[in-house]
Amino acid sequence: MLNFKYHNPTRIIFGKGRIRTVAKEIPEGSRILVTYGGGSIRENGVLDQVTGALQGRDVLEFGGIEPNPEYDTLMKCVELARSERVDFLLAVGGGSVIDGTKFIAAAVPHQGDPWEIATSFGRRVGSSLPFGTVLTLPATGSEMNNGAVVSRRSLNAKLSFGHPSLFPVFSVLDPTTTYTLPAEQISNGIVDTFVHVTEQYLTYPVQGKIQDRFAEGLLLTLIEDGPIALKEPENYDVRANLMWCATLGLNGLIGAGVPQDWATHMVGHELTALYGLDHGKTLAVVLPALLSARRSEKRDKLLQYAQRIWGIAEGDDDAMIDAAIEKTRAFFESLGVHTALSAYGISNECIPRVAELLEQHGLTRLGERSDITPETVRNILELCL
Amino acid sequence: MLNFKYHNPTRIIFGKGRIRTVAKEIPEGSRILVTYGGGSIRENGVLDQVTGALQGRDVLEFGGIEPNPEYDTLMKCVELARSERVDFLLAVGGGSVIDGTKFIAAAVPHQGDPWEIATSFGRRVGSSLPFGTVLTLPATGSEMNNGAVVSRRSLNAKLSFGHPSLFPVFSVLDPTTTYTLPAEQISNGIVDTFVHVTEQYLTYPVQGKIQDRFAEGLLLTLIEDGPIALKEPENYDVRANLMWCATLGLNGLIGAGVPQDWATHMVGHELTALYGLDHGKTLAVVLPALLSARRSEKRDKLLQYAQRIWGIAEGDDDAMIDAAIEKTRAFFESLGVHTALSAYGISNECIPRVAELLEQHGLTRLGERSDITPETVRNILELCL
Repeated sequence: MLNFKYHNPTRIIFGKGRIRTVAKEIPEGSRILVTYGGGSIRENGVLDQVTGALQGRDVLEFGGIEPNPEYDTLMKCVELARSERVDFLLAVGGGSVIDGTKFIAAAVPHQGDPWEIATSFGRRVGSSLPFGTVLTLPATGSEMNNGAVVSRRSLNAKLSFGHPSLFPVFSVLDPTTTYTLPAEQISNGIVDTFVHVTEQYLTYPVQGKIQDRFAEGLLLTLIEDGPIALKEPENYDVRANLMWCATLGLNGLIGAGVPQDWATHMVGHELTALYGLDHGKTLAVVLPALLSARRSEKRDKLLQYAQRIWGIAEGDDDAMIDAAIEKTRAFFESLGVHTALSAYGISNECIPRVAELLEQHGLTRLGERSDITPETVRNILELCL
Repeated sequence: MLNFKYHNPTRIIFGKGRIRTVAKEIPEGSRILVTYGGGSIRENGVLDQVTGALQGRDVLEFGGIEPNPEYDTLMKCVELARSERVDFLLAVGGGSVIDGTKFIAAAVPHQGDPWEIATSFGRRVGSSLPFGTVLTLPATGSEMNNGAVVSRRSLNAKLSFGHPSLFPVFSVLDPTTTYTLPAEQISNGIVDTFVHVTEQYLTYPVQGKIQDRFAEGLLLTLIEDGPIALKEPENYDVRANLMWCATLGLNGLIGAGVPQDWATHMVGHELTALYGLDHGKTLAVVLPALLSARRSEKRDKLLQYAQRIWGIAEGDDDAMIDAAIEKTRAFFESLGVHTALSAYGISNECIPRVAELLEQHGLTRLGERSDITPETVRNILELCL
């Protein structure tokens, strides 16, 4: 096992009916800014639940944070928060709203150009406004970690950043808020969670037996409950398991003490920046290709994955790995998420563009051994077409 | 899944050579009191490592905290901490030292009789001194939770208490500190961890698939690595897995959202209070008996345990459950921990005494359904002889 530090102070309040307790979690006397996205929380009643719970408190609202939250939008909110002297943010929504709120939390007290929060990967963050979240879309894990992604379309940029001050103080996870989500968003969220787990699991073995088994437990639960979530949108236990899977998939726990990859995510971010493709769809395309291209480097863990997750026990190593990758691809497709760029109308002209963007963003040594170069990425993308 | 709250702010610093970084975790200017046990940390060099790391800081020491930490001993430390105006405690040792230090942390600022911290199960705790830990014995999980046990031999009492202010600020987990532990302590620790997990796993199903699989991951790791830990005391990865298992077995995570039992622990505490029997040994005796006596109430989870943990696939329900209990017993015995009271020279005269003590401590409705009465305990103890 590798040496590690693990610290996660976010308070999780999980279950039916928990939104009504949200006011207790926010310090008395706070000037609260509720942030949200495109208005679906108006339609499904979640915004009403939140404002009802905050009755009698000092509350402002900022809506319109888009999927892949945009720098220009977020800066409008930063100006509002500064001019109104807001001192607590409450993000109500999915990963994009929460990530955007993290950017706002870091930018409000930031001296200098806020874009450097992103270009420094968070190293330039000093302090942040405290914030909580009410999660409505299980996918990114942002509700219990200190990382985020921000986009700036004018620069074709989608960049990750993180900072110890960017853990939510609390997150309310009520699985019933997900009942009305479109199937496409549930599917994307399942793929996102699945790939968060594989980024921390499919590397090389370090005898981290607990981390491996926890990762496998999340993958098996996604495989079992993902399809049911689509068929039975109001199956509470299934939605609860998906929500808790998404949170535990990226809260630092399963990655503590083991190598981590993240190349699939980095390549996926560039595809989103260039073509606006949903995050989950980029991952469904890149992961199977990357696993195939990196089968030597990941051999031991891929064989473990084949056996423990897919029950594959026959054939030589390569046959087992091929079968596991095929099962992975079939699982994503069964959720309605396509696994080839052609299905999204993207041709091989993306290959030089993605490679160039990675270089531009300084992402030239990716993967658990920092040996995935833009040239390796070209080979991977050839397998994504 | 049941509704739950989960919050665990303890910072974990895990790995070889981490003790030397401990000073960074303690606020500058603190008056630090290092607490420890019987002196084994003097012999194995851990105390030297800690005092070396704290060179130049304001440090006092208090040694002599015994296994099942004793109220009278702890109160001497409370007096020292008060008179010396200590403002940070650093526990160096196993669960007993950490539990004792939690009692000290709560007692120092306590108004009134400190024993009521225990008799109120922690409800009377107001604030606590901050404290960190350097763990040297994987077993109790106390290094990453807010609970503790304190004993008062003059009253035949061993009582649990807990409070939100009693999480360690940090815990340093260096697996190499466990290399010199006697085999008996390693074995007791494995049993303790195993039973922490089963208390949260072997109840009734609530579709908490992740909690189940995480619990199973810990049990399987203990079963695989426990015997190797005894044969190869300096196998780093094995000791690392045991240490991380012990911490994750009782840090709140696997019990969040699922029913919990704890009857084995409560009965075990009374056996320790009456006969001084090691905590791990009491659990090894009580668990198999309790599982057999409660097979109807726990049927679904016992069958899952039989299949997923022990690979038992044949026979009717009762045969599978019997086989799983037999495997559990054999596992404990293989570690050198006996599973019958007779092996420890305790006869059936313990039965009325344990039942009486439970009544005296108000512990008359135990288990995940609060239906284990002192009469049920009598039946369980009959199976322990």
